[in-house]
Formats: sequence, C-alpha cells, structure tokens
Amino acid sequence: MGSSERSTLLSLEEYRSKSSFDVKQMFEEMEPPEYFEIKTKYLLIVNEALEIYNANVSIKIALGVALFANALNCLGSERHKKFYTDVWEGKILSCLAITELEHGSDTKRLKTIARYDALTKEFVINTPGICAAKVWVGNLGKQCTHALLFAQLEVNGVSHGLHGFVVPIRDPQTLQPYLGINVGDLGEKSGLHGIDNGWVMFDNYRIPKENLLNRVGDVNEEGEYETSFTDPQKLLGASLEILSAGRVGIVNESSNNLLRAVIIAVRYAAQRRQFCDSKGIETPLLEYQTHQYRLFPYLAATYVIKNFSNEFSDRYVDCVAASREGSLEMKQVSRMVSGVHAVLCCTKAVITWTTQRAIQETREACGGHGYHKAAGLGDLRNNHDPRVTFEGDNTVLVQQTSNWLLKLYNDPDERDFTVYPLSMFKFIDQLDAILSKKSDVTNVETLCSVSTIMTMYEWLICWLLKTTNRKMDALKSKYNDRFVARNLCQVFKAKELAIVVAEVSVCLAYFLILPASALRIAVQNYGP
Amino acid sequence: MGSSERSTLLSLEEYRSKSSFDVKQMFEEMEPPEYFEIKTKYLLIVNEALEIYNANVSIKIALGVALFANALNCLGSERHKKFYTDVWEGKILSCLAITELEHGSDTKRLKTIARYDALTKEFVINTPGICAAKVWVGNLGKQCTHALLFAQLEVNGVSHGLHGFVVPIRDPQTLQPYLGINVGDLGEKSGLHGIDNGWVMFDNYRIPKENLLNRVGDVNEEGEYETSFTDPQKLLGASLEILSAGRVGIVNESSNNLLRAVIIAVRYAAQRRQFCDSKGIETPLLEYQTHQYRLFPYLAATYVIKNFSNEFSDRYVDCVAASREGSLEMKQVSRMVSGVHAVLCCTKAVITWTTQRAIQETREACGGHGYHKAAGLGDLRNNHDPRVTFEGDNTVLVQQTSNWLLKLYNDPDERDFTVYPLSMFKFIDQLDAILSKKSDVTNVETLCSVSTIMTMYEWLICWLLKTTNRKMDALKSKYNDRFVARNLCQVFKAKELAIVVAEVSVCLAYFLILPASALRIAVQNYGP
Ligand SMILES: Cc1cc2nc3c(=O)[nH]c(=O)nc-3n(C[C@H](O)[C@H](O)[C@H](O)COP(=O)(O)OP(=O)(O)OC[C@H]3O[C@@H](n4cnc5c(N)ncnc54)[C@H](O)[C@@H]3O)c2cc1C
Ligand SMILES: Cc1cc2nc3c(=O)[nH]c(=O)nc-3n(C[C@H](O)[C@H](O)[C@H](O)COP(=O)(O)OP(=O)(O)OC[C@H]3O[C@@H](n4cnc5c(N)ncnc54)[C@H](O)[C@@H]3O)c2cc1C
Repeated sequence: MGSSERSTLLSLEEYRSKSSFDVKQMFEEMEPPEYFEIKTKYLLIVNEALEIYNANVSIKIALGVALFANALNCLGSERHKKFYTDVWEGKILSCLAITELEHGSDTKRLKTIARYDALTKEFVINTPGICAAKVWVGNLGKQCTHALLFAQLEVNGVSHGLHGFVVPIRDPQTLQPYLGINVGDLGEKSGLHGIDNGWVMFDNYRIPKENLLNRVGDVNEEGEYETSFTDPQKLLGASLEILSAGRVGIVNESSNNLLRAVIIAVRYAAQRRQFCDSKGIETPLLEYQTHQYRLFPYLAATYVIKNFSNEFSDRYVDCVAASREGSLEMKQVSRMVSGVHAVLCCTKAVITWTTQRAIQETREACGGHGYHKAAGLGDLRNNHDPRVTFEGDNTVLVQQTSNWLLKLYNDPDERDFTVYPLSMFKFIDQLDAILSKKSDVTNVETLCSVSTIMTMYEWLICWLLKTTNRKMDALKSKYNDRFVARNLCQVFKAKELAIVVAEVSVCLAYFLILPASALRIAVQNYGP
Repeated sequence: MGSSERSTLLSLEEYRSKSSFDVKQMFEEMEPPEYFEIKTKYLLIVNEALEIYNANVSIKIALGVALFANALNCLGSERHKKFYTDVWEGKILSCLAITELEHGSDTKRLKTIARYDALTKEFVINTPGICAAKVWVGNLGKQCTHALLFAQLEVNGVSHGLHGFVVPIRDPQTLQPYLGINVGDLGEKSGLHGIDNGWVMFDNYRIPKENLLNRVGDVNEEGEYETSFTDPQKLLGASLEILSAGRVGIVNESSNNLLRAVIIAVRYAAQRRQFCDSKGIETPLLEYQTHQYRLFPYLAATYVIKNFSNEFSDRYVDCVAASREGSLEMKQVSRMVSGVHAVLCCTKAVITWTTQRAIQETREACGGHGYHKAAGLGDLRNNHDPRVTFEGDNTVLVQQTSNWLLKLYNDPDERDFTVYPLSMFKFIDQLDAILSKKSDVTNVETLCSVSTIMTMYEWLICWLLKTTNRKMDALKSKYNDRFVARNLCQVFKAKELAIVVAEVSVCLAYFLILPASALRIAVQNYGP
C-alpha cells in the first residue's frame, strides 16, 4: 500500500499534513502547465499512477488542481487564466464544493445562493441555514485556498440556476480563512484519512463579478443576466469533460484496486499451505475448489475490467477531441455526449461495486493474515469504499443509463450508431427479430464461443428493454406520474438493464482482443 | 458506536492502553466469581452487552477472563483453582495462544512443543523456528500475564498431541516478560485497534508440571504419560463448552452488529429525503423501490437471526447442563455434542457473512454521510470483519457441517433424533419419499405458507445430500483418496448443503414464534 497507510505513529492531524506535504513534493516533480496540450490523457495517467502510490495524494491533486483547472478550461473564459496559471504553479489549491448537508445526489435542489449586487459589481454568497452548508468537500477542511463553488445565481431577484464560481477561501500565505467564511474539517471518516474533507457556510461573503465562470451565462455591464451560448457545440463537449473526467478517473482507479487485491490474494493462495492430503503433503490454498471459486471470478474480472478501463479512457479522450475539433455535427456531438455519459454511469457503478466485493473476498481468502494492516486489504477496502458513492451514487447513476436506453428504444431518431459508444448498441434496431430468435446451441463448444455469449447478451438487453418499457408505460397511465412510474420500475427491471449494459460494454472491449479459442478452454475447465 | 471508535486524538498505543483501562473498570463492576454457578449463560449475556458498548473491551475480557476460566474449568482440575480465582479477581489476565504463523485452520499441525523434563518435573517449551511463532493472540501484545497455550506434549521422546498449558508470560506487577519469552505486539490491524494481538516465541522456557491442564491426559509421578479419561461423558461435555462457547458468543455479537447496522440505515432512510416527485414533495429514501430491496432483506434477516441467536444460546446452555447432569446416555451426549457443533459451524458462517454484507450495504445506503466515522458503519464493518475468520474460518467450518450431514446420511445409527439439534433433521429418515414428491402448490397463499417453505427446504436438503454423497462416492473410487474427494465436492455441492442447513436452522427458530398469516402478507406485498 506504499505510503497510503495511516501510520501508527501519526495522529490524524499529522497524517493530514503529511499528505499535504506529499502533494507539494509531487508538484515539484510534475511538468509545467504548457505541457497540458494533451492534458486529459496526461492527467488521467498521472492520476492513475499516483493512486497506486497513495490514494490520498492522488485525490488531493485531482480535486485541488486537475479537476479545477479542467473546470476553468471548460466553464470559464480568458478572465480566469490567472487562477489556471496559479493552480498549476502550486500557488493556490482548490476544492470542488457541490454537495450540501441536505442534498447530494439531487444537485438541482442545492440552496447556496450567489446574489448579484449591481452597485459594487460583486456576488454576495450566502448559506441559507445549516442544511445548505457545503459538506464533504475534499481539501476544504484545512488546506485549500480557493473553492470552485456551485451555487444558485440570482440576478435582480430572478434565479438562473446553478453556476460555478471561483471563491477565495483562505489567504494563500497564512491559510487563515477570510471574514464571512465559516469553514472547518468534517472530522474522521472511514478511510482516506489523509484528505481533509470539510464544510463551509457563507455569510454575506463578497466575490468580484469576474469570478463567475461565464461559459454558460454571465451578468453584463448593465447588471443583467445573459446566456452566452456562443458556441453550443463546444459547450456540449465541455460538459462532457466536466461530467465525465472524474468518473473515467474512478474507473481507472477501481480497476487498479481490483488488480491489487486479486494479486495479493492469488499470490498468497499459491504460497500458503493448509491441511495435508493423504500423502501428508500440505495443500496450497489455490488447489482448493472453494478457493478457486472465490478468487478466479475476480481474477477474470480483473482482466476484463482493466482492459475496458484502458480502452474506454482512450475512446473518451477521442470523444473529447472530436467534440473540440468541430468535425462532427451538433446532433452527433450531443448524442455522443449522452452515450458516453450513459455507458460511464453504469460501468462506474458495476466496476466500483465489483472491486469493493473483491477486496472483501480477498481479505477473507487471506485468512487472519489478510486482516493485518500490512496485507493492505483493509486500507484498500476503506479507501475504495466511497467510490461507490462519490462522483454520483451508483444506484442513482444506473438509473441514468436505463433512462437513456429507454429513450433510445422509444425514439429511433436518437439512435445514431455512427458515434461512439452508440455503435455498440446497433442491435437494438433488430429488437423484435432478436427476441423472436430461439437458441440453436447444442454443444458446449458453441455455447462458450464469444459470438454465442454476445448473442445471448443482446437478447437479454432487448428483453429487458421491452419488458421494462412495457411496465413503465402501464405505470405511467396508471399513475399519470413519470416519477412514480420510474421509481416502481427500478427493481423490475431498470436496474438489471443498466447492469447488463455495463457487463456488455466491459466484455466487448475484452472480446476484441481475446483469441477465439481462449474463452472456450477457460470455461470448459471450470464446469461442475 | 460508543467508545469503540478509535479517537482522532489518541495514537494506537494510547488507544490500546485506554481499552485496558476500560477492562479494569468493567471488572470492578462485575459480580464476584461465586456468582458463576450459571456462568455460561451469564458470561454470554455480559459478553453480548459489552460488545454493543465496545467490541475491544468485550473481546479483551472474553479472551482474558471468561474463555480462560472456562478452559480451566473444562480442561483443568483442582490444582488450577488458583489461576481461576486470580483471573476472576483481576490479578492476572490471560490470552489463548493457539494459532501459529504457518498454521491457523489446521491446528493439528501446530509445532510449538512442550517437552517433559522428568528431572526437574517441568515442561520445557520451545518454538521450533519462526513459522511456529504463536501469532494473532489477543491480549498477548502488551497486557496479558498468562497464556493458555496449546502445544504438542512430548514425554520421553513420544508426542501425545496438543494439550493445554497455563504459561506465565509477564510479571503481574511490572508487566515485564520473563526470561526465555520473546513476545511482542503484532502491530496494526484493519480494526479492533484496542486489542493488542501479539506474537510469542519460547526458548527453553520452563513451567511447572502442574501447569498442564490434565483433564485429558497427565504425566504421572513416574514421569509417564497417562490419559485420565476417568469420566469420558463429562469430557465430552467439556469439549462442547471449549469448542462452542466462543462461537455461540460470535453468533450473538454478529446478530447485534446486524441489528445495529440495519437500524442505522432504516432510520436514516425514513428521515433522509432526496429528489422530488411531480408534486414537488421530496421523497424519503425508504420509498424508493431499490432502497427497499437493498435494506428489507437484511431487516428481515435481523428478526430471524436475532431470534435464532437467543434461542440457540438457551438450547446450548441446556445441552451443556444436560451433559453435566449425567441424565443422558454416553452415546446421546456424543451425538448431541457433534450436532451442536455442526449446526453452530454453519450458522456461525452464514450469520457472520450476512452481517458483513449487511454492514457494507447499509454503509452505501446512507450515502456520503454513511462514510463518516460518526455514522459508526465503517468501524462496525472493520471490527466485525475478523469474525468470519476467527474461531474457525467460515469456509473451513461449513465443511465440518457437510461432513457431519454426510455421516448422518450414510449411517442411520447416528441419527438420534431425540437429542437437540438432531431433532430438526428428523425428515432425513424419509429422504427417498421426500425426493419423489412433486410440488402441488397452485396458489400464492399456499406457496408463502411456512409449511410449504419448510417442505421445499427439506426437499432441497435431501437433494443436496443425495447428490453430494453420490459425487463423493464416485470421486472416492476414482481417486481412492478421501481428502481429494472432499476437496472436489466443496463447490458442487457440499458448501451449498451446509449453507442451506444453516438457513433452515435459523428459520426454524423463527417460524416457531411467527403467526401463520404474517409471512404470507409480508411476501405478497413484495412480489414484482
Ligand atoms: C469521501 C467522500 C468525498 C467526497 N468529496 C466531495 C467533494 O470533494 N465535493 C463535493 O461536493 N462532494 C463530495 N462528496 C459528496 C458526494 O458527492 C455525495 O456523497 C454523493 O453525491 C451522494 O450524495 P449523498 O451523500 O447526499 O447521498 P444521497 O443522495 O442522500 O443518497 C443516499 C442513498 O439513497 C439512495 N438514493 C438517493 N436517491 C435515490 C433514488 N432516486 N432512487 C433510489 N435510491 C436513491 C442512494 O443510492 C444512496 O444509497 C464526497 C463524499 C465522500 C464520501
Ligand atoms: C483479529 C484476530 C484475532 C485473533 N485472535 C486469536 C487469538 O486470540 N488466539 C489465537 O490462537 N488465534 C487468533 N486468531 C487467529 C485465527 O484463529 C486464525 O486466523 C483462523 O483460525 C484462521 O486461520 P489462518 O489465519 O491461518 O487461515 P488459513 O487456515 O491459512 O486459511 C486461509 C484461507 O484459506 C482457506 N482455506 C484453508 N483451508 C481450506 C480448506 N481445507 N478448504 C478450502 N479453503 C481453505 C480459508 O477459507 C481461508 O480463507 C485471530 C485472528 C484475527 C484476525
């Protein structure tokens, strides 16, 4: 686990300052900002590598620098260049303040308010009550100097919805919070002890007009709100980067955590022996049938998921590039963006869940020694755990995938199979034909072939789509309420649908590189 | 979580001494030893209550006092009374030293050796190499004064297998270890931070002859080994107490941990709201279909398991009493003891696993706030986790259940349905008749009745028994090796068999108290 363990000898305070120190050190090693022409891919790789070394440091840098710079780039404009330069030079450190005490998943209901004061050309930020306190914000507890704050923008008494603001929090020299800011550390968590998650409440706190990230909307010289959708195509691309970069990072990190857990347990099982056979030879754990059934599915998942994670990152960067280049039509960009979002939502969920379960199983498979801190599995479990919740709670995310699929099902116009990742779902055009097919598999060989497996998956998706949609329609006419209908379809079968789509997406990337014979052999060896 | 949290402000060292202090305090509150006529039940209740307050303190006392005193009682004799009195008066504190670095589940292979020296009438204890170091021993790291050590007894060059010894480790006044003892703390674990698990190696360390727990065997005045099976009936009863008391405790503790996790998550779900319905009213999490499917099975399991745990503890105490009273025949005691052991093995496994999964699910169901230390779920998960491993690793334990069932299947003479818990398995006598039955259920009402559910469970157990046995026989003749045959039957279907038996055992205790109509209503409300 390298230095991501919380050491015996350090208190929480000391541990947190140690990770700040590590962040500073990392910084001196990192390339200067000019380098970031191909920044998305570069940042993803740096993040992935750092995470293996120390999850606390990678998250601190991701929140404090990379995601902040990314957001300035996507949502801001020329006037925010200063922050961009400063953060890359390590002069300031940021945080992303979205979640409030009462609202996490439902970001639309966030209550922090930024009111425009035309007299002083400032925004006045307020927290209307304790329930609207920003909470859980990484880096905010002790260390950040600035927040990228999401708040309801109000101009002349009219609310214009959530906007992003750069908000100075602490003096970069003294780290003393400014007047009007009530900020603190959230206290101990179940892991990620090196990250100072914090809370903040604003009391008539003023920031200059320029600190509004104005790509989406701005307040003009006359003090009126205007949306500046000058280039909606680029805006869509920007929203892709903003929404998805963090999740792509999580998929990469999770695949590495899975890899790490599985390697520890498989190596241990090969070397640890327990109980003798009748010849008196002690048996390696790996030879026990139960042990194989406990570990090998996760070992297999590691190959598949790690490969997907590499492949998907590349395709994601391609999509960002394509959306920037302007070679695609507006509608295509729009569909690509929702498609990437939909596939990422369900795969982020399935991959983080699989990893969390795998870590627990590997911990148990290493017996008592697996419970030792030095085995690394306890810390891995505790540090990985919040990934199922942050950057979108898994259960909430999979609903976005199923909603997107139902839209695709109901509106053939939305099916633009020329763009990634919609290309994967071309078979939906043949839905009825697929559902009427019966399996003609009569031998094990054919059953275990990639094409049979994919055919079965396609059938399953079509079936889940059709049944879920039928149920949804019936519930809509019964209750005349979309919200109620969706809620009542979650278990039967919207959630299943999204999970199967995640499995297919992940497997597809693997089948592309798998020699046709390999799968059959593997499956045949492990029948009853 | 009360004081079982590891506080921010304490280092590991300070935290460990804090729990020692808590142990001392608890002690002053506890009743004096005279009270322990009905000690088994009393100790189980104290342990269960303490565990809710602080898992570290309950485990320290269980290992340091209760299980030690219990072992002296069961395995020792008059000459060990002194230790018994001392430990109850808080003058000494013990640990149970069984596990070695290289051997945990396979206790037969333990290597620590106690050689009898006829000249000095002492045992000379040695650790033959680092692999035989005693490890993981709770209380041994810093605090215990004595160990209940399990070592291979050797007299005149002949080994007589594992025996228990009371071994002084540290001076009770100074807590300095004695010469010949190399002892240390095992370092950080993934939880239970207040317990000083330790390691120890012995170097020609001498203890008086009397310190051998001599119920099973002793060295006589002539320096010869003799087994003193004076009262085999009582010995069997003793082995029941020794083997099972800890596991009964774990079942109780787990059911409380499950209860705690489920209560936290259900209460939170009733009060936390997220997302609005079409009327603009925010929905409590508990109203979401997925949320119900995530939590309600564990809520249901809590009722069933908590009830089993109460019921089984009582029956267990009855069995101990019956074995002591001498009213049962020798064979009956023997069968009762194996039956209790078999049912406890599989239910300990299923209950600790269910609890571990439940804690993870409830953590996720509480969203980000569930990851805060104050939610208590992270500590609960980390502290509960080793229960799937200690007092017998779950995967190893369930094999003991399936082996016992296969014995019952093959040898009708073993089926003494007059004793608990064999009475639950009376239906095995009708195995073939049961397997030839077809279900005649045609409506939901009958399907959801307790009697249908039990009939299906009985069928399933019979089917698993028969198929597993058939496969085992085939493998035995193929490989001519019991060990290989058993290993190859683990997944198909010995493990399943044990798990189903655990489910039946747990449910039976519940169905006894369930009004017939309740189940049907509950099940009907939650169909698709
Ligand atoms: C370690 C950590 C670091 C974080 N860092 C940051 C940060 O830097 N900045 C920041 O702004 N935030 C941060 N967060 C907050 C995080 O983004 C939120 O926790 C997350 O968005 C989930 O929101 P919530 O906690 O309010 O959960 P809720 O939205 O309250 O959800 C709670 C539970 O209810 C379920 N649920 C909710 N809605 C539905 C529905 N419609 N249908 C079915 N089930 C539903 C969910 O599945 C979940 O299990 C962090 C959180 C953690 C744990
Ligand atoms: C917190 C904690 C406290 C403890 N306290 C004490 C104590 O006070 N005193 C003491 O003596 N010990 C103590 N122990 C040790 C504990 O009893 C052992 O860890 C336990 O018996 C398992 O043994 P092991 O760790 O050697 O695992 P192993 O026996 O090495 O098993 C490792 C893995 O292999 C699998 N496996 C092993 N054999 C088989 C098989 N035949 N078939 C299929 N799978 C198999 C198991 O399922 C397990 O997953 C403690 C352990 C912990 C974690």
